[in-house]
Amino acid sequence: MEKWKIIKTDVALDNKWCTVHKDIVELPSGKIIDDYFVNIRPDVVLIFPVTADGKVIMVQQYKHGAKEVLLEFPGGVFDPTDESAEAAALRELREETGYSSADVVPLTVVYDNPTKDTNKMYFFLARNAEKATDTEFDHTEDIETLEIPLAEIHGLIKEQKIRVTGSIALYYMALMALGSGV
Amino acid sequence: MEKWKIIKTDVALDNKWCTVHKDIVELPSGKIIDDYFVNIRPDVVLIFPVTADGKVIMVQQYKHGAKEVLLEFPGGVFDPTDESAEAAALRELREETGYSSADVVPLTVVYDNPTKDTNKMYFFLARNAEKATDTEFDHTEDIETLEIPLAEIHGLIKEQKIRVTGSIALYYMALMALGSGV
Repeated sequence: MEKWKIIKTDVALDNKWCTVHKDIVELPSGKIIDDYFVNIRPDVVLIFPVTADGKVIMVQQYKHGAKEVLLEFPGGVFDPTDESAEAAALRELREETGYSSADVVPLTVVYDNPTKDTNKMYFFLARNAEKATDTEFDHTEDIETLEIPLAEIHGLIKEQKIRVTGSIALYYMALMALGSGV
Repeated sequence: MEKWKIIKTDVALDNKWCTVHKDIVELPSGKIIDDYFVNIRPDVVLIFPVTADGKVIMVQQYKHGAKEVLLEFPGGVFDPTDESAEAAALRELREETGYSSADVVPLTVVYDNPTKDTNKMYFFLARNAEKATDTEFDHTEDIETLEIPLAEIHGLIKEQKIRVTGSIALYYMALMALGSGV
């Protein structure tokens, strides 16, 4: 199965917070599409922090795309030219929750919306997470940190209290890595 | 935890395939952000089709956001004013794979990227899926249908052969619904 050939890329929207390209592409069939829009987005980290006594650290905050307050795992964007994904995951964990961990392992690298967006999402598991510092929210953040027993996460997903694809996928990957017999 | 107040919405990009709003918002703290970009995206369905003999129907196709060929569950966008999510899921399943099912149940409704995008994603499980018709690809689609034994999906996720958050999350939700003891 072949990739599409990019004939020309126009910048449809060019802003620090939102960059959109309009590509003219040629499909393997020879068909030309002259307006395929792609959102150029920075890569993202998402981390599953669990304490030595089995509490999972989650964050609750308002998300302005969905216009709802949502419960997710800590994470955020990073610049792959500036820092490693692991460093970014630990930085986001510290800034959003004040927790840290000396026991972080990468789980997988996935896409969130490969149809429209360029960015990857890096998943990490942080065992033995501990409260280390105060939180440092950036200028748009107002975040509530919750400590939730690992055994309750499944129920929260079932009851649609956790309802973001990245966090559900990360929980499943973390469970596998923790050897919980999924 | 309060929502943000929208003071003004400007249309930053207005196209049939890509609509971006630039909101001026007031945070609960009183702080004003004058350039919060939101992608206005149509809602999406994703369906987990499994045959009577335990084969899962998946689709493999090139995705121009990621610039990669990816293995996912069937799905696509729909217009909530035109059809139900379930009708859309069955339509996408039929068009992309030629399979249908008389035994479809809704699993959950989630967000894919609640920070930047407006759209929800509706998850369905289709038991007793059967090949019913020929495929009907739309003008950008070139899709390979695969029948994969249910027991092999876990390994495909572990080996990063399945690596899209929506598909991983849907697999987990479908396993729960199928009573596979996650």
